[in-house]
Amino acid sequence: ERPLKDTIHVSKLLFFLFRKTSAGYNLTNLFVGSEGTLGIITEATLRLYGIPESTTVLVCSFPTIDSAVTSTVEMLQAGVPVARVEFLDDLSLEAANKYSHLSYPVLPTLFIELTGSPQSVEEQTEIVGSIVKDNGCSEFTWEEEPERRSKLWKARHDWWYAGLALKPGAKGYATDVCVPISKLPQVLLETKEELMSSPILAPIIGHVGDGNFHSMLLVSNDEELSIAKQLAINMARRALKVGGTCTGEHGIGRGKMTLLEEEYGPTGIQVMKNIKQSLDPNGIMNPGKIIHIQS
Amino acid sequence: ERPLKDTIHVSKLLFFLFRKTSAGYNLTNLFVGSEGTLGIITEATLRLYGIPESTTVLVCSFPTIDSAVTSTVEMLQAGVPVARVEFLDDLSLEAANKYSHLSYPVLPTLFIELTGSPQSVEEQTEIVGSIVKDNGCSEFTWEEEPERRSKLWKARHDWWYAGLALKPGAKGYATDVCVPISKLPQVLLETKEELMSSPILAPIIGHVGDGNFHSMLLVSNDEELSIAKQLAINMARRALKVGGTCTGEHGIGRGKMTLLEEEYGPTGIQVMKNIKQSLDPNGIMNPGKIIHIQS
Repeated sequence: ERPLKDTIHVSKLLFFLFRKTSAGYNLTNLFVGSEGTLGIITEATLRLYGIPESTTVLVCSFPTIDSAVTSTVEMLQAGVPVARVEFLDDLSLEAANKYSHLSYPVLPTLFIELTGSPQSVEEQTEIVGSIVKDNGCSEFTWEEEPERRSKLWKARHDWWYAGLALKPGAKGYATDVCVPISKLPQVLLETKEELMSSPILAPIIGHVGDGNFHSMLLVSNDEELSIAKQLAINMARRALKVGGTCTGEHGIGRGKMTLLEEEYGPTGIQVMKNIKQSLDPNGIMNPGKIIHIQS
Repeated sequence: ERPLKDTIHVSKLLFFLFRKTSAGYNLTNLFVGSEGTLGIITEATLRLYGIPESTTVLVCSFPTIDSAVTSTVEMLQAGVPVARVEFLDDLSLEAANKYSHLSYPVLPTLFIELTGSPQSVEEQTEIVGSIVKDNGCSEFTWEEEPERRSKLWKARHDWWYAGLALKPGAKGYATDVCVPISKLPQVLLETKEELMSSPILAPIIGHVGDGNFHSMLLVSNDEELSIAKQLAINMARRALKVGGTCTGEHGIGRGKMTLLEEEYGPTGIQVMKNIKQSLDPNGIMNPGKIIHIQS
C-alpha cells in the first residue's frame, strides 16, 4: 500500500449532516481533539440547537465545597435536565465580586441554568431548590431577565481575568482534570486542601455536571511556577487514581505528554503512535505534540 | 518504531468512567463500530440513565408518509424532548396487527414516547397533539399503563418476525440508511415509491428522530434476491446523494464495502486503510471486512 501524500484533504470527512452512522471507522472523532497532529480541519458543520422558551439562572451559596458538589450529584441523580451547572469556590466569588461588580456571598457557589417551557423551568426550580436547601444552601437567588443572566455568565466567563486581578502582576497556570461524578466531591476537596496549604493563590471553578474542574495557579516568579507545576501534576495524578483523565478539555500539547503516558499505559500510547505514523509518516503535522515520535 | 504485537489488550482503552476527555486520540470511538477489524473489545462499562418518573406512548395514524415524517421534523424543531419516535408504514402496521394482535388503522403511523415529570409529559403531549393534528393525524391514542406500553414496544420490536409472516417462506433482506432530518420526508417518499413499483413486498420502519430508516425486502427466490440487492443499493445511493450515510446502525461488513468507497471517496478510504494496517499489520482481525486490504 502506498503511504499517504504529505497533504491530505480531510475536510470531507468532517462534513456530516446526519445524526448517526456506522460506516467504517469514526474518523470525525479521531480528528477532533487530535490537536492538528493528524491533519488540518478546513471545514466544519455545526449542529444548532433551538433557544429554549424559558431560562432561569439560580445562584446558590453553600457553607462548604462538599455541600455544593453533593447538590450537583443529587440534581443529576434526580434526573433534573440541568442545562448548565458551574461551581465557583470562595476565592472565585471574591474575584468575581471585585472584577464584575457583583455582591454575592464569598462562599462556594453554584450557578445553575434551567431551561425549557415556563412550566418545566418552574418545576425544575422547585426540585433544585429543595435539593440545595437540604444541603445547607444559605443563599438562593435567581435571575430570569436576559440582561441580568448575561451579566452573571459574563462574570463567570471573565473568571480568568478576575482571578489575575487578585494578584496584580501574576500570571495564571491553568489546570484541567475530569473525574467520574461520584468521585468529584472527594477529589475537589483534596485539591482545595492541597492548594490551601501551598503558598500559591488558586481559585477553582468547575463544570461540575461533567465532573470537570479547573484551577488557575497564580504565579509571580520561577519558584512559584515550579511549585505550581508540581501542584498541577498532583491534581492530574489524583484524577487518574480515581479513574479520571488528566485533561477534560484543554488537551495534551507538550505539557501533558508524560501524564498521557500514565493515563493510557504503553499499549495505548503505542496504538496512538501507530495511528500518528500511519497518517503522518513524515512527521510534519504539529510535530512534538501529544506523543513522542523518534525522528 | 516496532509494530504492535499480534494480540493487543485494548480493554483498558474502553474503560472510561468520566464524561469527557481531551487526552490524546479518541480510541474509544475508533474501536466502537470498527466491527472487530482493529481489535477485540473485552470489557465495556455502560452509563446508566434513570427511569423517568412518568412515561406516555402516543400512537398517531396519518393519511400519508409525508404527514407523519413532517410531524416528526416539526416536533424536533419545536424542541419537544421526544424520548423515542418510531415510524411504521402501512405494511408494517398490517404486519404488526396480525402478528401482535393489535387493531390500529393500517396507515403510516408514529409511536411517540414522551418521558419526564407528569406535568412535563402532559405539556409535551399537548404540543405533540397539536402538531400531529395540524398534519392531518386521523387517529390519536395513548398508553400510560406499563403493560400496555410494553405490548406496543414489543409489537415494534417484533417487526422483523411480523414482516416475515406477511409472506410465509420468504427471507428478509435488511436495509439501513440515515439522512439529514430535513431530507427525510423526500427520501422516505422516493424509497416507498420505488418499493411499491417493484415486485418486492417491503415494509418500512424508521427511527425517524435520527433520520434513520430500514426496510425489510421479502424475498423467496434468487430472482427476487437480485432485485432486492439492487433496491438496497438504490436506497443507499439515494441517501448518499442528499448527504446521508449508507448505514446508520448495521455497519459495513462485506456487503457495503463498495458503498463505503462511494461515501468516503479514495482519500477517506486510504485513511481507514492506513489505520487498519497500522493496528493490524498481519491482517488477522476480522479480515475481509469494511475495507479491502491486499494480502
